[in-house]
Amino acid sequence: MPDRHVQNVRRQRPAAVPRRGFLEMVSGGLLAASASLTRARAAETSSQSDNLPPNTPQWMKDPGDADYKGYGQPSKFANSIKRIEAKGRPSPLSSFSFTPLQDLRGIITPNGLFYERDHGGVPTINPDEHRLMIHGLVEQSLLLTMDDLMRFPSVSHIHFLECSGNSSAEWTKPTNSIQASYGLLSCSEWTGVRLSTLLDAVGVRPGAKWILAEGADAAGMDRSVPMQKAMDDALIVYAQNGEPLRPEQGYPVRLLLPGFEGNMSVKWLRRIKVGAQPWMTREETSQYTDLMPDGTARMFTFVMDAKSIITHPAPGGKSIRPGTNEISGLAWSGYGKISRVDASVDGGRSWTTATLDTPVLSRCLTRFRLPWSWDGKPVALASRAIDETNYVQPTRGQLIEARGTHSRYHYNAIALWNIGADGTASNAYA
Amino acid sequence: MPDRHVQNVRRQRPAAVPRRGFLEMVSGGLLAASASLTRARAAETSSQSDNLPPNTPQWMKDPGDADYKGYGQPSKFANSIKRIEAKGRPSPLSSFSFTPLQDLRGIITPNGLFYERDHGGVPTINPDEHRLMIHGLVEQSLLLTMDDLMRFPSVSHIHFLECSGNSSAEWTKPTNSIQASYGLLSCSEWTGVRLSTLLDAVGVRPGAKWILAEGADAAGMDRSVPMQKAMDDALIVYAQNGEPLRPEQGYPVRLLLPGFEGNMSVKWLRRIKVGAQPWMTREETSQYTDLMPDGTARMFTFVMDAKSIITHPAPGGKSIRPGTNEISGLAWSGYGKISRVDASVDGGRSWTTATLDTPVLSRCLTRFRLPWSWDGKPVALASRAIDETNYVQPTRGQLIEARGTHSRYHYNAIALWNIGADGTASNAYA
Repeated sequence: MPDRHVQNVRRQRPAAVPRRGFLEMVSGGLLAASASLTRARAAETSSQSDNLPPNTPQWMKDPGDADYKGYGQPSKFANSIKRIEAKGRPSPLSSFSFTPLQDLRGIITPNGLFYERDHGGVPTINPDEHRLMIHGLVEQSLLLTMDDLMRFPSVSHIHFLECSGNSSAEWTKPTNSIQASYGLLSCSEWTGVRLSTLLDAVGVRPGAKWILAEGADAAGMDRSVPMQKAMDDALIVYAQNGEPLRPEQGYPVRLLLPGFEGNMSVKWLRRIKVGAQPWMTREETSQYTDLMPDGTARMFTFVMDAKSIITHPAPGGKSIRPGTNEISGLAWSGYGKISRVDASVDGGRSWTTATLDTPVLSRCLTRFRLPWSWDGKPVALASRAIDETNYVQPTRGQLIEARGTHSRYHYNAIALWNIGADGTASNAYA
Repeated sequence: MPDRHVQNVRRQRPAAVPRRGFLEMVSGGLLAASASLTRARAAETSSQSDNLPPNTPQWMKDPGDADYKGYGQPSKFANSIKRIEAKGRPSPLSSFSFTPLQDLRGIITPNGLFYERDHGGVPTINPDEHRLMIHGLVEQSLLLTMDDLMRFPSVSHIHFLECSGNSSAEWTKPTNSIQASYGLLSCSEWTGVRLSTLLDAVGVRPGAKWILAEGADAAGMDRSVPMQKAMDDALIVYAQNGEPLRPEQGYPVRLLLPGFEGNMSVKWLRRIKVGAQPWMTREETSQYTDLMPDGTARMFTFVMDAKSIITHPAPGGKSIRPGTNEISGLAWSGYGKISRVDASVDGGRSWTTATLDTPVLSRCLTRFRLPWSWDGKPVALASRAIDETNYVQPTRGQLIEARGTHSRYHYNAIALWNIGADGTASNAYA
């Protein structure tokens, strides 16, 4: 057996590296910081030495906490990072809470901060007593325990989930908080059984065009889903970012319809019924439809269209300082992959192509980034997503021209953040 | 602006789908479950109806919990899923805890269950007071606050982290728990600044071949890292799965060396010193070296070699039932991407290529899966990883022949799980 030696590390690059002038770019902040180098040099310690310099930080003098076992929690210094609850709901039992996008990096949302929406509170379900039934226009009905379900072949994929009501305030009363306006958006690795695998198992009968998904919460939340989506990439999910689903995400099992509006991915899933037509449930007739200017309503508006948002800097987030900064944000499309994100530092008059973190995945958040040197004068920042179908995220004017202002759902227009001379971001439409 | 209509859902497939005989495959379990269908049909509710059938579950009758805001936690039914602490350590302040691989799905490890290793406890560091210094053989030293650091261009990537001592018990005293034997392995999305960006900023001087990374914990943990790795894919990380690093993962900032043994990715990072040769620190001389049969020691064994492990079923995990099951596990290589995983259900005599979840990423966990119909008789399961360099994970015999049994680190041999007639998995070498 060949035994590798580490001297054979591949992809070697020369050790001597040219300076690329970053120090000039970063200007103010870093030069100010380097003024305190003298103090830091004095504090430099050696692991071989027992003589600690006088300003050694306390956390190097005393042993740390030995009790970091079990299930870990965030640092106390990060405990302001949390979901915030929706205000003004008629009942706390039909509520939602928002992901703090301004405090997050990358594309994964940690499970504790995944946005939450419920129509009858969060049920406490004993997984041993829970059953999933598949019936209707099928050859043989199935009733599955959780153990049964997890014996089927599974798959894990990373997908975003966005409430169709995300950014709904932007239609008429834009807010000055990215968390409250855009925080019904999160992204996880989901593990589950393809719904097509289960439908193949029960045998879908001729004429079946739709499924009904029903939750085991007190609202009995149910939605109709076209059969082609059920057979394409729908998942019956039991794990999220590796561990079992969280209670507010549907524990022990939920539907996941990648790219579709959030509430169709029915949580606490108890029943899939196969049928010939949609069931016209409350949540697809009285709710989750969009009133158009001509008095008609858009209905069954399943797919969340391409959208993007700058999260750093952003309203409610940390203010910035003059000099080098990184503009960073998220882009996504229910129709597939993001192909490009443009960013603007002049209110949308000119655009620069941003860098995309890889891999860029289908129906998944994509993190975009653009280095930017800010001169300290007021500016307006914007981002614009283009997806693999060549759809371009609309401006607010274009969206309202097409849809009017009576919609409550599916707001996906380009956002505009004003940066004031003090480095604080605010919503230009608020 | 084009206004999409959902009727244009792409990738349509015919609604009528042929049965593929899954019911026959799954045999026992599902047929038994379907016997209780009558009861379930009686329990079928309609969201339009106020008349609840008598055996409607309690969680559909009563409104759920309204208090799922702030920072969420796992279900109380899943609270047995936690890290376990190492036993028999000389001090609780130099300890580790193991990720429950047998309970996890997919590739992401949730932050609360990420394995933990410390040499002096977990320090509680105020990020506002923390500094990162970059000095030594450079044109201009830098002292960075966390705010300074986060103004540099960043990137997010998903990478595994494995302690070089993972599976160390397997060298001589194999255990009967996948968590205790293999749980010093986790995987996150990491966000940070490329170390090459910072080294470009300070200007590396001629003759610089190594860096020293030093932690701000009470152990002042430090390791030497070759310059080529520092300039390749090393990251100065401040976020993990979206949120700030957890305390036990190095809050507020750590080094991450993708594919290298875990302790080189120095946590609570306070200092990067650039130099001409390695510093020969305690943790690369007295520790983290491997004694060979000929009396020499392997040293600077940085890269974690290709390895795989079946996590379902596995010792310490749920036992299985006869009929259809999914064999599932993890494969990884510090040298790049996994190109193939083979699985065996006859103790390694014959092998079948497993399916890999996509995307397969470099220096990242890869989830493999193989559907398997178990006849209920005792068998032995094994998996074998092959990486993109065509390296094949060795058998235990091959590994011990090459390295002897005096190593404490870098055990990466093929594991063998015995499945007893009762469906319980055990370590064939324990």
